[in-house]
Amino acid sequence: MAYNILILNGPNLNMLGTREPEIYGAQTLDDLENYCRESAATLGMKCTCFQSNLEGDLVGKIQTAAAEFDGIIINAAAYTHTSVAIHDAFKTCPLPFIEVHLSNVYAREEFRHKSLISSLAKGVLCGFGQMGYSLALQAMKEILNSRED
Amino acid sequence: MAYNILILNGPNLNMLGTREPEIYGAQTLDDLENYCRESAATLGMKCTCFQSNLEGDLVGKIQTAAAEFDGIIINAAAYTHTSVAIHDAFKTCPLPFIEVHLSNVYAREEFRHKSLISSLAKGVLCGFGQMGYSLALQAMKEILNSRED
Amino acid sequence: MAYNILILNGPNLNMLGTREPEIYGAQTLDDLENYCRESAATLGMKCTCFQSNLEGDLVGKIQTAAAEFDGIIINAAAYTHTSVAIHDAFKTCPLPFIEVHLSNVYAREEFRHKSLISSLAKGVLCGFGQMGYSLALQAMKEILNSRED
Amino acid sequence: MAYNILILNGPNLNMLGTREPEIYGAQTLDDLENYCRESAATLGMKCTCFQSNLEGDLVGKIQTAAAEFDGIIINAAAYTHTSVAIHDAFKTCPLPFIEVHLSNVYAREEFRHKSLISSLAKGVLCGFGQMGYSLALQAMKEILNSRED
Amino acid sequence: MAYNILILNGPNLNMLGTREPEIYGAQTLDDLENYCRESAATLGMKCTCFQSNLEGDLVGKIQTAAAEFDGIIINAAAYTHTSVAIHDAFKTCPLPFIEVHLSNVYAREEFRHKSLISSLAKGVLCGFGQMGYSLALQAMKEILNSRED
Amino acid sequence: MAYNILILNGPNLNMLGTREPEIYGAQTLDDLENYCRESAATLGMKCTCFQSNLEGDLVGKIQTAAAEFDGIIINAAAYTHTSVAIHDAFKTCPLPFIEVHLSNVYAREEFRHKSLISSLAKGVLCGFGQMGYSLALQAMKEILNSRED
Amino acid sequence: MAYNILILNGPNLNMLGTREPEIYGAQTLDDLENYCRESAATLGMKCTCFQSNLEGDLVGKIQTAAAEFDGIIINAAAYTHTSVAIHDAFKTCPLPFIEVHLSNVYAREEFRHKSLISSLAKGVLCGFGQMGYSLALQAMKEILNSRED
Amino acid sequence: MAYNILILNGPNLNMLGTREPEIYGAQTLDDLENYCRESAATLGMKCTCFQSNLEGDLVGKIQTAAAEFDGIIINAAAYTHTSVAIHDAFKTCPLPFIEVHLSNVYAREEFRHKSLISSLAKGVLCGFGQMGYSLALQAMKEILNSRED
Amino acid sequence: MAYNILILNGPNLNMLGTREPEIYGAQTLDDLENYCRESAATLGMKCTCFQSNLEGDLVGKIQTAAAEFDGIIINAAAYTHTSVAIHDAFKTCPLPFIEVHLSNVYAREEFRHKSLISSLAKGVLCGFGQMGYSLALQAMKEILNSRED
Amino acid sequence: MAYNILILNGPNLNMLGTREPEIYGAQTLDDLENYCRESAATLGMKCTCFQSNLEGDLVGKIQTAAAEFDGIIINAAAYTHTSVAIHDAFKTCPLPFIEVHLSNVYAREEFRHKSLISSLAKGVLCGFGQMGYSLALQAMKEILNSRED
Amino acid sequence: MAYNILILNGPNLNMLGTREPEIYGAQTLDDLENYCRESAATLGMKCTCFQSNLEGDLVGKIQTAAAEFDGIIINAAAYTHTSVAIHDAFKTCPLPFIEVHLSNVYAREEFRHKSLISSLAKGVLCGFGQMGYSLALQAMKEILNSRED
Amino acid sequence: MAYNILILNGPNLNMLGTREPEIYGAQTLDDLENYCRESAATLGMKCTCFQSNLEGDLVGKIQTAAAEFDGIIINAAAYTHTSVAIHDAFKTCPLPFIEVHLSNVYAREEFRHKSLISSLAKGVLCGFGQMGYSLALQAMKEILNSRED
Repeated sequence: MAYNILILNGPNLNMLGTREPEIYGAQTLDDLENYCRESAATLGMKCTCFQSNLEGDLVGKIQTAAAEFDGIIINAAAYTHTSVAIHDAFKTCPLPFIEVHLSNVYAREEFRHKSLISSLAKGVLCGFGQMGYSLALQAMKEILNSRED
Repeated sequence: MAYNILILNGPNLNMLGTREPEIYGAQTLDDLENYCRESAATLGMKCTCFQSNLEGDLVGKIQTAAAEFDGIIINAAAYTHTSVAIHDAFKTCPLPFIEVHLSNVYAREEFRHKSLISSLAKGVLCGFGQMGYSLALQAMKEILNSRED
Repeated sequence: MAYNILILNGPNLNMLGTREPEIYGAQTLDDLENYCRESAATLGMKCTCFQSNLEGDLVGKIQTAAAEFDGIIINAAAYTHTSVAIHDAFKTCPLPFIEVHLSNVYAREEFRHKSLISSLAKGVLCGFGQMGYSLALQAMKEILNSRED
Repeated sequence: MAYNILILNGPNLNMLGTREPEIYGAQTLDDLENYCRESAATLGMKCTCFQSNLEGDLVGKIQTAAAEFDGIIINAAAYTHTSVAIHDAFKTCPLPFIEVHLSNVYAREEFRHKSLISSLAKGVLCGFGQMGYSLALQAMKEILNSRED
Repeated sequence: MAYNILILNGPNLNMLGTREPEIYGAQTLDDLENYCRESAATLGMKCTCFQSNLEGDLVGKIQTAAAEFDGIIINAAAYTHTSVAIHDAFKTCPLPFIEVHLSNVYAREEFRHKSLISSLAKGVLCGFGQMGYSLALQAMKEILNSRED
Repeated sequence: MAYNILILNGPNLNMLGTREPEIYGAQTLDDLENYCRESAATLGMKCTCFQSNLEGDLVGKIQTAAAEFDGIIINAAAYTHTSVAIHDAFKTCPLPFIEVHLSNVYAREEFRHKSLISSLAKGVLCGFGQMGYSLALQAMKEILNSRED
Repeated sequence: MAYNILILNGPNLNMLGTREPEIYGAQTLDDLENYCRESAATLGMKCTCFQSNLEGDLVGKIQTAAAEFDGIIINAAAYTHTSVAIHDAFKTCPLPFIEVHLSNVYAREEFRHKSLISSLAKGVLCGFGQMGYSLALQAMKEILNSRED
Repeated sequence: MAYNILILNGPNLNMLGTREPEIYGAQTLDDLENYCRESAATLGMKCTCFQSNLEGDLVGKIQTAAAEFDGIIINAAAYTHTSVAIHDAFKTCPLPFIEVHLSNVYAREEFRHKSLISSLAKGVLCGFGQMGYSLALQAMKEILNSRED
Repeated sequence: MAYNILILNGPNLNMLGTREPEIYGAQTLDDLENYCRESAATLGMKCTCFQSNLEGDLVGKIQTAAAEFDGIIINAAAYTHTSVAIHDAFKTCPLPFIEVHLSNVYAREEFRHKSLISSLAKGVLCGFGQMGYSLALQAMKEILNSRED
Repeated sequence: MAYNILILNGPNLNMLGTREPEIYGAQTLDDLENYCRESAATLGMKCTCFQSNLEGDLVGKIQTAAAEFDGIIINAAAYTHTSVAIHDAFKTCPLPFIEVHLSNVYAREEFRHKSLISSLAKGVLCGFGQMGYSLALQAMKEILNSRED
Repeated sequence: MAYNILILNGPNLNMLGTREPEIYGAQTLDDLENYCRESAATLGMKCTCFQSNLEGDLVGKIQTAAAEFDGIIINAAAYTHTSVAIHDAFKTCPLPFIEVHLSNVYAREEFRHKSLISSLAKGVLCGFGQMGYSLALQAMKEILNSRED
Repeated sequence: MAYNILILNGPNLNMLGTREPEIYGAQTLDDLENYCRESAATLGMKCTCFQSNLEGDLVGKIQTAAAEFDGIIINAAAYTHTSVAIHDAFKTCPLPFIEVHLSNVYAREEFRHKSLISSLAKGVLCGFGQMGYSLALQAMKEILNSRED
């Protein structure tokens, strides 16, 4: 049966495409989510996308993900740097997850260099734009396959 | 008339019992809330339990608590370490409150050693598991009694 | 056509007037919002007021403000000091904004001296009580006028 | 057989009742020790109280406690914040211990916010005045009972 | 009788208009002082302007201001960030004062984010260019009026 | 014409497979380099692998890479955290480069959380084992293709 | 009746005169104590001298001083920089005290620049050798006299 | 021949007596200077007093003091904490000097705990009010006498 | 026409030759200024020397230098490490300037390692004694020549 | 005549052998002291062993050691990291001393990485278990022999 | 069969004997290596000595040491304080190793107090000059013997 | 006999002229070295130039320089900020040396503001491009001449 992946996007990612295209590219959140679904399909996987500006909503999605999904790919955006609650949600979650950022956070402000969730992730990717999600899906497939052995 | 206590539980405490039992024990949030209600009853008090993953919901409950309750017992979980908003909500709240943590936060990660709300609390308890709530209820009763003198 | 200004008030400002009058004065949030509307009217402007205890709600209001408003005046309260998400929302927002605080934050706790949004603001005002909003409205009018030249 | 608990009080606690009643209450060390003995008796336990101003004396008591006692309740007072020796003594001691403070140390000077022994304690309690000792005795009883299972 | 306000400008503000117009605008110190006098007149107040590059001169003006003036508006420029002497002068001065900066100091170098005098000010304004002085005069009038009540 | 990619591995990566398989997996450097060559071939690219324990050798390879290669993938290992010289070499190098780490460096010692070269990279990947190199090759191909448009 | 002053000397001051005369001068502790007694006598006061290498002993002397003495002059030596217990003892002590150091601690190692007791002292003196004790006795006399007014 | 002592008072000390009497006492600078002259006379010495709000003036006085004076007593006030120039002036000055503060600076704001000149002083005195100057004069006499031996 | 260079010397440099010859050499300020004038003449340039102990005087000289001079060579001495005002003065000054120190400041106290003006200078020189001024004059000539091309 | 060496063991070392054998080995303090005496005898030296949990006792032993001993070997245990008093005692002591730790303190908690006495020691040894004392005795012998030349 | 020990000396140790004899003694590297070989022979062991100024060479020697040697004694000199690469090489190396320094690094510059390799060593020795190597050889022998049991 | 000067250039300086001309100018390393040789010749001196990307090679050159050269001019580039080994090499080297940087390092990234070798240099120069080497040669000549006196 195909793996089902939850893709979580954090605050302000719903604004993709309309602002700061020099950093985040011209695609909208819709474009990005379609791209993710196509990438997943190509890999023989399914994915469900969810975006929220609310820290607690992201926490809630992570808490209940194990009932429905096999893995999580998350771009926690601003909450990457401030949310102990998302860190704790991942601690209670048995699924493997991968952290993605569209831009290279290390080439930006100092406060974006610290992630509160990286230490719990299987892996971290940044700077590859929407392609980063596709690479994360590939990586997730391999991680899940190796678990089944 | 019996004291009426508001018991607030923060993010991820709704996952109690299903994850990390080596830290948080095997009881669920339901178990914990029942335990609290029974402990309160034994002490001749009432208590109402509320859990949320949303910082703003906890802020809202604290703001309106004085209309209905005599004291607050809070386990703010992850928000303990990051929420100035909850700190400020307690500043606007005339009720005495007690801070509780199930685990000994000082035996865990460095970022759990700093609480933004302790300085406003009547007292702080950590490391006693669910019993901590019962001890807090006793302490609250005595605090309220001494106020009435 | 009259400028339309969004006035955002953050967590716990809905408690104005009932608590800590020595810091925040005796007026309620209603009083403050009426005062703002009157000040705006005097200046030949309109304003819409919104208060929330939820970080994500404030983020959402900022994201969609450009469709309806000409500028934003924000008192982010506690989120001033902790919210990268609101910082990022302003990064995606083309409107000029002004940061206001009722009290002089520099005369209070150390953790209130650092604002995560000041670097993006047109200007910052603190310590003037409700008058600060009126001064901000005047400043916003001049900023918008000078843009139209 | 009844549990026998060692209650250790650190430097300056022999001055209780004569100074700073606004922080520490009006009871003397004698009052506090009597209160502890009565609380223990009510719980079907015994307790022995010891106070010293000497770091090395407290170290010595902890080292030899296992021969005679089932658990330790300690208010290390000033040594809480400076004594690696007491930390190390607890490392060599097989008994469970609980850390107690009469006042809410988090509402006082910065240097009282750091405890060198909390990370080794079963639990920590502060801000409850003499009642804190009684709550600690209850907690100790439950900790010891659960060990016997 | 009209309020008489002392407007103090610190080091390098005598160079206004000739340098860095992208930060400080094109008006000269004369322009700024005329603008202040007109703004004051419009408000039914008087103001006297003084600029110096010498820390000690500004200290002296603050020390003697109470004999002649009702309030002080100060742009201490570079001394904002380094002068304990000006801080202390305001401590000896019974007049209310407002801190103004032409530019948004929080959008500039790190060393401009710390003010040694803000904690003593009635309020702080930055980023509004010359308009900031006019807003400060309005605020000062209201502060002085409310004192007289 | 096929893109030619330089793959640089830093100090101690020649020891792969013989030590710490729980962190770095069981494959040897030879295995890893073969895997990279196969991955590149699958993508219609070529790659050349180079490993050195000497900071200066890595600097030299980066300096001369532009004459022969189209992009660089680097796992600078220990030098990631200490080498300003490699940082400067990349500053003098016109090629895009991607930073890879086999393990999740954020789940390891504090001193591995800081990279001196990330700020100059197109993107960063860590925690995916040898697969990380394959993902980096894909990303590099897309980066190079988009440059040619 | 003559004031009775307690003079406390901390660890290693019993070695005065035998070591490091370039810093501490050639007089022994006996010499110093005689000098103090003579100085006190000249001022019409009495003094009692006590030296200990034990932190707890100094704590004990401070605790009981009020029964017998009118003021304390203390050279806490090494404990100046490390003892919260002595800080707390002075908090429980109603007597005025003066802190003295033989050498100029600010011209020595960094760790001697921080005193844990200065904030509670009436005044602090350092660098005057044995004369510092005589100056402290004079100051204490004046402090006590002004209290009696 | 009588020693001639230069007494330097720094910024804002000309305001003594008119402000903050709870910290600095009720005497004016004139009172303080008269007190110093009388104290000096009693000791068979002469003293000349100089006050300035200008850092450079104090630097100048220290530079030329050796031509006329035998020692310096300085209360550098705010410049104590910020002036490298006064530090350097004392480095070029062969006279012994004593640092005095009217208030106990260690019981005040953190930024008053660091002195840039203490490391060069013969001794430091704080917290004794005007008496501190008299004690410093005594100490200076003894320092100068011991030099003549 | 010959370039005209302003040479500014900061606080305590008027004491050259009389104190600390082991650091600053035996020449007086007069010697140094003559040396500068001769060095300039040799290079076909003119120079004017100015020394002050007052931060504000140096600020003033920098502000007005462009009317008369082609470049500035400054040894700001103690103000190097503390003066934001001099930093800001250079920001308003269109002339190139070179920072010089007689001694190697990096071999002295930690607080001399940080310069507030270096980031704005064309270049920095230290440790070469009076020769440093001559080298700076040469460098200034070449900088000015290359500007004229 | 045989060298006589004082071996000082600090707090909690009296508990050797009964606790934490995985860190400190299975030998008791008696075993260790016998081992030291035998090692000394083999080297033609004598040694006297002393253990105390009291900081002041260790200070006292160091102060009087020169009368009886030729050198000191000290394992100050917890006081290594907190005792300025022991540091100062060694400053007053003319004997050479060697610092020993049973465990490798650098492989343990951060707070054990800083020693307050190392800077005064002839040499430091850690991680060699009881053998460390024997190596220290050898080293001491050679140090003493080379002194006698 | 005799144990074979690799002795590694880092940068600048080839200069022994020609420079800074007050710190490092008068023996040359040759002398030191001969001394080591003799010490090893006396203990019935063999040793091979290697010195390099190149970080990467030391890394290479550690990587291949297990094929030929039973243990390593290293004086990494300057690389002790800066080399993560050597740290990582020891992580891949199964041999026990001991860290040696000729001088007491804790009595020297602050930057020599931090070792990047101590946490992985069996033990650390410093301050004993060449004797330190002999003591390390003894310790290594005992470590290897105890492993064989 | 003519002085013979060693000119050392560190990592990436072999890339001069091909990259970042806005910072480093258009000349190549060959150009720079020719310029140095010509400058030396003009001064009646000789110089030998050496560049390496390897820290250990630079260390080696410094160690052996005294046999052949009279002084060293070094631009250690990236190693300036990270190499304790080069610091130590200069400690073992009896020659005077001057530190040069082409660019003004204080106007660049924070990590370029700290030099590990400046404290040992005769003098430091930065920001003068290739002219800096010529100025350093002049300074070196004068330093060497003054030594011969």
